[in-house]
Amino acid sequence: MRMRPGAGENKGPVAMKSIEWQENGVKILDQTRLPGEVRYRWLSSVEQVAEAIKRLEVRGAPLIGVAAAYGVALAAVKHSGDRESLRKELLRAREILINTRPTAVNLRWAVERMMQVYHGSSHLDLDTIRKRLVAAARQMEEDDLQQNRCLGELGADLLPADARVLTICNAGALATCGHGTALGLVRSAFSRGRVKKVWACETRPVLQGSRLTVWELMEDGIPVTLITDNMAGYIMRSGQVDVVVTGADRIAANGDTANKIGTYGLAVLAHYHRIPFLVAAPFSSIDLSIPGGDEIPIEFRDADEVRKIGGLFITLPQVEVLNPAFDVTPGELITGIVTERGIARAPYLNSLADLNQKGREDTNDL
Amino acid sequence: MRMRPGAGENKGPVAMKSIEWQENGVKILDQTRLPGEVRYRWLSSVEQVAEAIKRLEVRGAPLIGVAAAYGVALAAVKHSGDRESLRKELLRAREILINTRPTAVNLRWAVERMMQVYHGSSHLDLDTIRKRLVAAARQMEEDDLQQNRCLGELGADLLPADARVLTICNAGALATCGHGTALGLVRSAFSRGRVKKVWACETRPVLQGSRLTVWELMEDGIPVTLITDNMAGYIMRSGQVDVVVTGADRIAANGDTANKIGTYGLAVLAHYHRIPFLVAAPFSSIDLSIPGGDEIPIEFRDADEVRKIGGLFITLPQVEVLNPAFDVTPGELITGIVTERGIARAPYLNSLADLNQKGREDTNDL
Repeated sequence: MRMRPGAGENKGPVAMKSIEWQENGVKILDQTRLPGEVRYRWLSSVEQVAEAIKRLEVRGAPLIGVAAAYGVALAAVKHSGDRESLRKELLRAREILINTRPTAVNLRWAVERMMQVYHGSSHLDLDTIRKRLVAAARQMEEDDLQQNRCLGELGADLLPADARVLTICNAGALATCGHGTALGLVRSAFSRGRVKKVWACETRPVLQGSRLTVWELMEDGIPVTLITDNMAGYIMRSGQVDVVVTGADRIAANGDTANKIGTYGLAVLAHYHRIPFLVAAPFSSIDLSIPGGDEIPIEFRDADEVRKIGGLFITLPQVEVLNPAFDVTPGELITGIVTERGIARAPYLNSLADLNQKGREDTNDL
Repeated sequence: MRMRPGAGENKGPVAMKSIEWQENGVKILDQTRLPGEVRYRWLSSVEQVAEAIKRLEVRGAPLIGVAAAYGVALAAVKHSGDRESLRKELLRAREILINTRPTAVNLRWAVERMMQVYHGSSHLDLDTIRKRLVAAARQMEEDDLQQNRCLGELGADLLPADARVLTICNAGALATCGHGTALGLVRSAFSRGRVKKVWACETRPVLQGSRLTVWELMEDGIPVTLITDNMAGYIMRSGQVDVVVTGADRIAANGDTANKIGTYGLAVLAHYHRIPFLVAAPFSSIDLSIPGGDEIPIEFRDADEVRKIGGLFITLPQVEVLNPAFDVTPGELITGIVTERGIARAPYLNSLADLNQKGREDTNDL
């Protein structure tokens, strides 16, 4: 296995950006190659951005939101026609990007916000419109990092001393523009000396836990132990988990939370063992237009993700497979939802609405 | 992927024996190679039998019991010294075999039973002792098949019509001398038209579900859908599971059941969703000498089972790993324990003792 230069020197993945705007293109860290290979890709069209999102080269709800925003900016920057054709090109980009992945709401949220920036600037000259779109996407990237630092600090207060934290998938620096959501909370708490260790579920089928979370935490020198997903019950029953922290792909108005497949099972296990279960997400993951989790669309992915590992079949190639990429954890199993605006607790219908109102007031204060 | 000749012709794995005594040796199907390759191995010493058990070439609690019995027989057959050295050789074989794997009680049970046969014959001439040991091991193989057919028929009555059965690991023909325990129950019910489909959890880290259960069920034409272990909660919540059926490696007097890692998590999920949870096992998996599950020794296996799949690292090679091969499901989460002597229900302290008594009376009747 090849490691990036400097691995083990604890420079941390903060030094390594998951996404970056570069003149006329987007530079991404190809997450399908980790941890074996640290390879960057330059995306120079909205189609390439969409393809990178579909293929999970960029993944994680907050990160695909920012990637999609850059996709819109890229469509504008690459466009060279008149005002009407720019409008059509941006609508086309919107369609392409929104149809990449259905579950994470951040993607749609980010694209629509870019379209608002466009509509607010459409009377200006074309070059200014393009600059404003690029600036807006860069601002989203910056905001994401700040939000994660903020929710990390808020959430760190919730962890007990010497916390042994169980997490699934990768809701870390790699899933965001830095610091992470679930792992942002872990990082903030670790810097205060409050984290003893992290249990990383490997997260089949795509192995974001073993490939990404393990790598990211080891780079930062945060103690991590890897388990297969079906070991979570064992370590909870044997008293080795103090708190579960996960990210979110979409949170409905009542607190029902779509996240990586397996999250729901962890929430049921945590409930049974009376272990707190926290969700950490930026407010852009909350979709107040959806009353409950039943209405969150679940993405079903290719059966070969389950049939193969590392390109090799681990079962009969013709076996029938179900491959939902996400599940929904009902709000009643969630101890708290940590956002940059504050911590919501049950009943979420009230607490999430309150945080939404708070966000509007904060915006009005500016 | 190479398939065995005849695959897809539905000859069924019944035609393919997991273990067979052959003159001066034991023929086993090497289960580490499945489903890509159907390869048999000839074991010609007790050391080779022990190694095959440790390396999971033969696995499944009932099957390793019979394999160990053949190991004792093999030690006797290969021995060529005097009466005293045969005694020493059998004690040596006993030690080697018992120390291969700690959790499944069948192994120890089978070895001790072979030693009883030896002690009961030790006054006879050496050749007769050897013949009796081989005959006893062959009888255990035959008994295992009959017990599985019997418990399969008993357990099939418990399944609802058009049952959608969730299982983990492989408690099938491959884990036994034929028919299977959990899958024996499924086979018996399927032949009565009562099984709609089987959900097979892939069962990381060793993938007995995707490699063995999928293969075995497809060979028999029983509909099977493969999922990763962390999808069990999703399919239960979406109403797609009617019953969970698993095997067992050791059952304590109070019904606490050690089985493949992940079983406990499924039991908690089944309990939360009010789905019946059945354990299917021969009575030789029940260890009445142990009052509760806390005293069942759990085997921890090599970290590389988690770090690698198919010989390839899927994470950083130096990451810390926990790799318990089994967990313990408390009796209170188990709806029923199906054995060849009958079905035990809570409180298991009484029902298992009753079945034990029944077994003694049946033996006395002979």
